[in-house]
Amino acid sequence: MGYSAEKLSEEKVFKDPVHRYVHVRDRVIWDLIGTREFQRLRRIKQLGTTYLTFHGAEHSRFNHSLGVYEIIRRIVDDVFRDRAEWDEEERLLSLCAALLHDLGHGPFSHSFEKVFDLDHENFTQEIILGDTEVNKVLSRVHASFPKKVAEVIGKTYKNKLVISLISSQIDADRMDYLQRDAYFTGVSYGHFDMERILRVMRPREDQVVIKQSGMHAVEDYIMSRYQMYWQVYFHPVTRSAEVILTKILHRAKDLYKQSYSFKHDPIHFYSLFEEKVTLEDYLKLDEAIILFYFQMWESEEDTVLSDLCKRFMNRNLFKYVEFDPAKEYKKLSELSSLFMKAGLDPEYYLVVDSSSDLPYDFYRPGEEEERLPIHLLMKNGEIRELSRESEIVDSISGKRRTDHKLYFPDDLLQDDTSKKNIKKQIRALLEI
Amino acid sequence: MGYSAEKLSEEKVFKDPVHRYVHVRDRVIWDLIGTREFQRLRRIKQLGTTYLTFHGAEHSRFNHSLGVYEIIRRIVDDVFRDRAEWDEEERLLSLCAALLHDLGHGPFSHSFEKVFDLDHENFTQEIILGDTEVNKVLSRVHASFPKKVAEVIGKTYKNKLVISLISSQIDADRMDYLQRDAYFTGVSYGHFDMERILRVMRPREDQVVIKQSGMHAVEDYIMSRYQMYWQVYFHPVTRSAEVILTKILHRAKDLYKQSYSFKHDPIHFYSLFEEKVTLEDYLKLDEAIILFYFQMWESEEDTVLSDLCKRFMNRNLFKYVEFDPAKEYKKLSELSSLFMKAGLDPEYYLVVDSSSDLPYDFYRPGEEEERLPIHLLMKNGEIRELSRESEIVDSISGKRRTDHKLYFPDDLLQDDTSKKNIKKQIRALLEI
Amino acid sequence: MGYSAEKLSEEKVFKDPVHRYVHVRDRVIWDLIGTREFQRLRRIKQLGTTYLTFHGAEHSRFNHSLGVYEIIRRIVDDVFRDRAEWDEEERLLSLCAALLHDLGHGPFSHSFEKVFDLDHENFTQEIILGDTEVNKVLSRVHASFPKKVAEVIGKTYKNKLVISLISSQIDADRMDYLQRDAYFTGVSYGHFDMERILRVMRPREDQVVIKQSGMHAVEDYIMSRYQMYWQVYFHPVTRSAEVILTKILHRAKDLYKQSYSFKHDPIHFYSLFEEKVTLEDYLKLDEAIILFYFQMWESEEDTVLSDLCKRFMNRNLFKYVEFDPAKEYKKLSELSSLFMKAGLDPEYYLVVDSSSDLPYDFYRPGEEEERLPIHLLMKNGEIRELSRESEIVDSISGKRRTDHKLYFPDDLLQDDTSKKNIKKQIRALLEI
Amino acid sequence: MGYSAEKLSEEKVFKDPVHRYVHVRDRVIWDLIGTREFQRLRRIKQLGTTYLTFHGAEHSRFNHSLGVYEIIRRIVDDVFRDRAEWDEEERLLSLCAALLHDLGHGPFSHSFEKVFDLDHENFTQEIILGDTEVNKVLSRVHASFPKKVAEVIGKTYKNKLVISLISSQIDADRMDYLQRDAYFTGVSYGHFDMERILRVMRPREDQVVIKQSGMHAVEDYIMSRYQMYWQVYFHPVTRSAEVILTKILHRAKDLYKQSYSFKHDPIHFYSLFEEKVTLEDYLKLDEAIILFYFQMWESEEDTVLSDLCKRFMNRNLFKYVEFDPAKEYKKLSELSSLFMKAGLDPEYYLVVDSSSDLPYDFYRPGEEEERLPIHLLMKNGEIRELSRESEIVDSISGKRRTDHKLYFPDDLLQDDTSKKNIKKQIRALLEI
Repeated sequence: MGYSAEKLSEEKVFKDPVHRYVHVRDRVIWDLIGTREFQRLRRIKQLGTTYLTFHGAEHSRFNHSLGVYEIIRRIVDDVFRDRAEWDEEERLLSLCAALLHDLGHGPFSHSFEKVFDLDHENFTQEIILGDTEVNKVLSRVHASFPKKVAEVIGKTYKNKLVISLISSQIDADRMDYLQRDAYFTGVSYGHFDMERILRVMRPREDQVVIKQSGMHAVEDYIMSRYQMYWQVYFHPVTRSAEVILTKILHRAKDLYKQSYSFKHDPIHFYSLFEEKVTLEDYLKLDEAIILFYFQMWESEEDTVLSDLCKRFMNRNLFKYVEFDPAKEYKKLSELSSLFMKAGLDPEYYLVVDSSSDLPYDFYRPGEEEERLPIHLLMKNGEIRELSRESEIVDSISGKRRTDHKLYFPDDLLQDDTSKKNIKKQIRALLEI
Repeated sequence: MGYSAEKLSEEKVFKDPVHRYVHVRDRVIWDLIGTREFQRLRRIKQLGTTYLTFHGAEHSRFNHSLGVYEIIRRIVDDVFRDRAEWDEEERLLSLCAALLHDLGHGPFSHSFEKVFDLDHENFTQEIILGDTEVNKVLSRVHASFPKKVAEVIGKTYKNKLVISLISSQIDADRMDYLQRDAYFTGVSYGHFDMERILRVMRPREDQVVIKQSGMHAVEDYIMSRYQMYWQVYFHPVTRSAEVILTKILHRAKDLYKQSYSFKHDPIHFYSLFEEKVTLEDYLKLDEAIILFYFQMWESEEDTVLSDLCKRFMNRNLFKYVEFDPAKEYKKLSELSSLFMKAGLDPEYYLVVDSSSDLPYDFYRPGEEEERLPIHLLMKNGEIRELSRESEIVDSISGKRRTDHKLYFPDDLLQDDTSKKNIKKQIRALLEI
Repeated sequence: MGYSAEKLSEEKVFKDPVHRYVHVRDRVIWDLIGTREFQRLRRIKQLGTTYLTFHGAEHSRFNHSLGVYEIIRRIVDDVFRDRAEWDEEERLLSLCAALLHDLGHGPFSHSFEKVFDLDHENFTQEIILGDTEVNKVLSRVHASFPKKVAEVIGKTYKNKLVISLISSQIDADRMDYLQRDAYFTGVSYGHFDMERILRVMRPREDQVVIKQSGMHAVEDYIMSRYQMYWQVYFHPVTRSAEVILTKILHRAKDLYKQSYSFKHDPIHFYSLFEEKVTLEDYLKLDEAIILFYFQMWESEEDTVLSDLCKRFMNRNLFKYVEFDPAKEYKKLSELSSLFMKAGLDPEYYLVVDSSSDLPYDFYRPGEEEERLPIHLLMKNGEIRELSRESEIVDSISGKRRTDHKLYFPDDLLQDDTSKKNIKKQIRALLEI
Repeated sequence: MGYSAEKLSEEKVFKDPVHRYVHVRDRVIWDLIGTREFQRLRRIKQLGTTYLTFHGAEHSRFNHSLGVYEIIRRIVDDVFRDRAEWDEEERLLSLCAALLHDLGHGPFSHSFEKVFDLDHENFTQEIILGDTEVNKVLSRVHASFPKKVAEVIGKTYKNKLVISLISSQIDADRMDYLQRDAYFTGVSYGHFDMERILRVMRPREDQVVIKQSGMHAVEDYIMSRYQMYWQVYFHPVTRSAEVILTKILHRAKDLYKQSYSFKHDPIHFYSLFEEKVTLEDYLKLDEAIILFYFQMWESEEDTVLSDLCKRFMNRNLFKYVEFDPAKEYKKLSELSSLFMKAGLDPEYYLVVDSSSDLPYDFYRPGEEEERLPIHLLMKNGEIRELSRESEIVDSISGKRRTDHKLYFPDDLLQDDTSKKNIKKQIRALLEI
């Protein structure tokens, strides 16, 4: 019996608060979980800075990755098995892709990717294909196996059904994170009947479809997602923390470019600053590393860097007001001047942040978010795109919602020991 | 109106997965939560290395501290208020002590305290009484207020009722952590009817008592605690991680004593190594800092330090067998010699670890665990110690249960590329 | 101290699976719960025939009534108390109206009201105002108190705020039943964050309003309601049971009109058959009584009555197909003729049933469903109707959804021992 | 393919609040659920009069029977399948026995069995073996199949392993009812980790055993059961309802024996009164029938019968005091005389009720409760009885706990309009 078919002598289980247990029988999966690259995901939070808003949201990407794997395992072993449309040969590939789909995430991905022009999807590919423990395990299955796994995650694999399991508008990734993030934050929004959705999933040649009888469960899932976006993922306090984090990275990079001399050598950051990050460098980055430097930078000479780091570490975040960029650009430029006069660099202390989401969309080639839409399998065998059947989904389909806020350090603006009049003017403009 | 009575203009709430919401109305509490010393608890896990066994257990002491506060708030505001035996003057003191009771915990407390001879309770006192943001907030209430809070936590405060709310065999601390740790690990053991227990708590001069009608809920709580100890807190895999962590700290300390030259200066560790830790040093310690050094030490020259750090970071833990120290000391010494011959320093690679718990105890002055026993308030007004009324509790009362295990690196012992015969002998002795 | 202010010496609690505990301190409430009219609600299921689809849905209106009371208690005691806009004098009135709002429901209300032209709302009024134990308790508060309670429930009371607590598009009634029905059926749809909604409710002169910050929680509540309607309340299998039940009542009434001689005297039904139901008669009706007669009627001579009763008792329900009354009326008349030929009276064996719901609506005077819309309290103090702020709600607002099905006894149509050819024709037409 | 192997074309599921879904694939199971004898269980509450204490406890035996079936289905299909010790031939038999194990329960079994000397286990046998729809379905499997099912339920079947699945000290029956009764009452006691217990169950020749690693989960289950007994099943208020119910039946029977002329013919009761109940009679009994007569009897001439029925229907129960039969028999006889003098027949109005439970017991042949003890499968393959390994279980093993209470109508004793002095004496003796 080859490695790909090897089973553990006894099934291993992980106690999981969301799925009760995560079950592992395949030796390959067990070995992947044990790799250093996968264990690294324990040191990267699933929701980045969200824990500063919802204190329960301290769970890691390790958690989530196991969850996505477990959902796929249930789909392929409990629902798809023995169905003609499902090729059992794709089973192990699907499981591996599920487990590894987030492997390339770094610490606080969102901010890091923006400031240092990184792409976690590229790193996922590199980790799977490069000189890593993960690659060694996958290569034992077959020399071409790592490439296949990378293709599934990269959405270029030939079997589109497998891709749709991992990334579509109703994939295992989303089903896990909605429930998991709801569980750990404690909000009541992320609930939907996943049991039922799994039961009505059917494999088709190029995608997973949902039996018509499960349409309402899918509607509920889409509404859950919509609520989670606006209640949790785009929470303005989380975005405030994100703004500060981004500004810390900007400042550190700027200082480096200006040959600033850091008290403590930020060795992990050099390749980031120079935008020449190797795989080895990248794998050394995790949130512990970042927080170490932030603590060090609290006592840097540069007051902007030091102030921002203190804010992040001690959760002394920026306040915000609603902001309409279309109408209020003049006000922004006015505020900008006043901030300068008040001795507050607007580059770091006056920040517009925008969030935007498309709760559901049918397929529009060439558009930014090209995730596959959801298809229903009608009683007569026909396949129909969800928004054509569901009024609720139709009503929100393709409607992008955007929210803009203006962030600033309220405490500094309230402190009237200096620049009293200018700050008064600022406060009047901000209506605070 | 003074600071101690000041209320927020609008109640603030924290979404909490265990208590649904944590409610804050007192300005003092709000200000304490905002201090840097309290925010630091976000970077210290409630259950140390347990996340390596139960992946959900990534929650911080910040979480738990808010929970204990919320329980006390409900007791004093919903249950005790307007009862003659309760002195409303003690309200704010109780809330502050609840919130701050774990303030002095450092990273991976258990191991650090053992290796560097620290005591988190002392640090809690120092943080409350020293030159800190927490002290500044408490002092605004009254110059003598920090001392009072410290006394409640230190169990020397004159009003024993207040102490018993925070530390007894059925205090808010235990009620929160049992439920919280069960929630985050996902185990089904930590459930008990806290609502009912709160409802039947009554203040008496020197302690909280429980109305007789709530006895079964208390029995259930004690059984939950018993189960949580053996299923979660003393889980042998967690203890394996703890063993490795302790050995890392030992090794680093030993190397320092031997004037070993670390590639990367472990500046946060110097005062630990010299056992002269100031408050300022201590407050810089958190788990991010420790994990930073562990990553650096993975590439140290010293192979023991480097190996142990890799094990910890990549969760390549020691295996274990049952061990009876009373009967098997000879075998241990024999194994020790064989390990030496096999090139494995038994000081680091052959470790006996023991766990021991007293699920409930009546009061025995002078004993190690001097927590107040639980008293029932009988229908006739009499007060009786719980184990005299409950058969279940009586049956486990005062019965210490101890478990010993012997830990070792199975992978190295299975690797027969060197010292084949000695390793074979070792494996035979260990029956693995 | 008068009766209206009298408190129980110790708070009483009911263990409730939805709200954890229902708390009673007021003597008046305690006495009302003990009346025979209120206890009768234990013998009337909250969801009528739904238990034949969702076996867990066996809970009674007694359950739900306590739940509505508990929600109102929390609103008035925890949220409204001490707010200038809230008149504490209305507290007891609100609690009583909440508890008693469903008092006039009879067994399987929907079918009984249709067949016998009853109106449970009238009976609620009669029970409160008539010669009953409930009236005696309420009259002890004040001679005019029963009338006030009846007015609140009848929506004619002068204080519209009190009415809106009990009946509006987001009242305590709906909030309880959605959660309770979800709990007992086990479906995952009825969840929404009631804690949050309660926290953001504010009293205004003529209605309850919701602080803008709670809008998403309200959206979630509306979506829950939408899902519950289509997944639970309008489930086609439940409607099949309802169809049969209605036809049983019709048949029994028809037989009575035809002076049919029942084997066992249906004494409880006479006043129903003659549509002269007194309050005393009505209070004797409960589901046990009805099921008693259905069992007796299983052995009646009349084969239609006997067959339908057996179907109901043994859950041998009608099957259904989709049916479009606008397009298929011809087919229906054709089927009707064929049924007659097949010896199946279409009056009883070929039934069109329609369900229709308006998930949310703004106010349109004169319309059938005149429940108050939901109003948001904006940050600037303005009050705005929900669908003007929420895209999701706007998208479904005022959109009535209707579903038509055609029910028939599949087993009889499959039975080819007689009228083989006609049945074949019927099956072809029905496409079964 | 024979009937025994026949599968439904599509799996059917029942939404179940405890197990999420109950899955049915076997045609035989589906047909059994549809029988009139099984559907009758919908009209019999799982917990009899408990709903008068815990209002949520309105769930039926139908509910529970599906649950037991589902647990067995998971054991045999997910855990036992493919294990050498398990005979796949016993699968269908186990499922049927699980589903039907409570089939013979009548309305309010406990009281009816006591007063009319019935035995629900006999009726289960009769229904399975007699001229019933259930028998017809089972006989289609094989002529000898009904007998086998009856033997498993009657504990005489040759394969003891199958019996132990359905009735032992840790069988599917108990595992379902503990969780289900906890769910519907809303108490927090019935939780234990059934998932884990199922995972560690192993088939052995004559019983199910539990892998040693699952011992703590089993301890937790036993403690849950202990708590449920004393918190729910033996709740003194439930027992008060039971006392009244029993006395109603006694009175009606006595009146019948005295040739009392009932206003309304209690036709369903005649065979009970004469203790000659046929299977046909028995199957007509359900709780609706009983409640019908209780309503009729509220207006009987006999004041005892009428008073007791009103009490039951309107939940005007007896109060109670602790009572020690060993020490207080004299007081009881004294009270008895006083009750007679007060015009209250002590036979009906002064009742001692005792409850008694053995939380766990090892095997003692010949003892009343002969359920099989729980056996652990040790790592070395040995089998050990649980209480020898678990201190907690050992401490409660074989310890019968008994509770006695004396019930009486407090309201009548407080009513001083007649027999004032005698009632005063009674109250003094009862210390109320």
